[in-house]
Amino acid sequence: MAIGVEVDVDRMEAPPDVVIRRLPLYARSLRYLLQEGIESVSSQELGDRINVTAAQIRKDLSYFGEFGKQGIGYDVRKLLQQIEDILGLSHEWPVALVGIGHLGAAIARYEGFRQQGIRIAGLFDSNPEKIGTMIDDMPILSFDDADTVIKEQGIRLAIIAVPAQRAQEVADRLVMAGVRAILSYAPTVLQVPDGVWVRYIDPVAVLHSMTYYLARDVSGARQNDPET
Amino acid sequence: MAIGVEVDVDRMEAPPDVVIRRLPLYARSLRYLLQEGIESVSSQELGDRINVTAAQIRKDLSYFGEFGKQGIGYDVRKLLQQIEDILGLSHEWPVALVGIGHLGAAIARYEGFRQQGIRIAGLFDSNPEKIGTMIDDMPILSFDDADTVIKEQGIRLAIIAVPAQRAQEVADRLVMAGVRAILSYAPTVLQVPDGVWVRYIDPVAVLHSMTYYLARDVSGARQNDPET
Repeated sequence: MAIGVEVDVDRMEAPPDVVIRRLPLYARSLRYLLQEGIESVSSQELGDRINVTAAQIRKDLSYFGEFGKQGIGYDVRKLLQQIEDILGLSHEWPVALVGIGHLGAAIARYEGFRQQGIRIAGLFDSNPEKIGTMIDDMPILSFDDADTVIKEQGIRLAIIAVPAQRAQEVADRLVMAGVRAILSYAPTVLQVPDGVWVRYIDPVAVLHSMTYYLARDVSGARQNDPET
Repeated sequence: MAIGVEVDVDRMEAPPDVVIRRLPLYARSLRYLLQEGIESVSSQELGDRINVTAAQIRKDLSYFGEFGKQGIGYDVRKLLQQIEDILGLSHEWPVALVGIGHLGAAIARYEGFRQQGIRIAGLFDSNPEKIGTMIDDMPILSFDDADTVIKEQGIRLAIIAVPAQRAQEVADRLVMAGVRAILSYAPTVLQVPDGVWVRYIDPVAVLHSMTYYLARDVSGARQNDPET
């Protein structure tokens, strides 16, 4: 593996999804470095922070062009800017959040979205007792109005935090309104048309994938993989 | 690819982590089938529900022995029982939950854990104003007492929902007390000793991995991958 980053035109065509999913972790780590006042970093130092090898980082970045200089490392601010551009974060993404139960309310209040290109643009629920109440300074709207709001604001991203048995119906309506990417907290697999992205967050499944190892007292090199 | 499942002794030694992470999704889908009164399922039908190919399901299960019968399919109840056994879910796992902010409180109240082998056994926070208050019928305890509770109850699993800058310190203390697997909601990579498992849930990173595609209007075959 060469130290320098070489650009492979073929590979630039389509980086694998696993690489795309690592880019936000690189960006996050670079943000922390900036907060610590660190302006330059080697792939080794960056890798140590996120349990990825230096070779992996160089290979991942090589899909997108040439970054850093051999023996000098990366300019943290510049690399962060470049990764944010790659991820489409040079502008803000409005997000519809559907299902304002305990979890939805916590998501609505989560400060981690702010300053990272994500803006919760509308809160929706179907419970008449919730509609019209506020989460901080945002009103909860009727899910019947989601279609209008999504179209008016050009919203293409949504977060679903409704019970599993309602998730498919909610997803169908969001996609009809123009949503093209869904993060679902509902523990069920959604069926969506081609061209719509869905990713899932399911803490039960994550915990169960660790009880497997605990039940066997297995430890391994991959136990702290940032991708998972 | 043969329809029947053949047992490969070498492969039974160490199924890859990606297979372990799919098992909880199979179990979840089988639970839904049972709720719908469906007692028998083919790998094709099961695969269609979770966007995994039938071949993938058969290959994944082959790591653990022989399941189902050619041309008959799987006995749903039996396969669920077998997968739960593989995942170590034949007994209940007590879990320590640290950080009872908006998110931690929502996790504490999440009904999805119950009846799935996960029991939130202790809520911990460092904020004196929260300590002693209740989430439903559970008191919030001081994080200073976590060590004692973890040792007394033999807790080996923990969920961390504290701010990123406190997560490493919390993880260190949990591991010292005996925790061997951590699900962290804090957006930072934790450094833990060998033999300790860490997995992460970071909605910002997940959203950013989809804005990449939205910014390019890319759609692909992998856009609804249940693993992610």
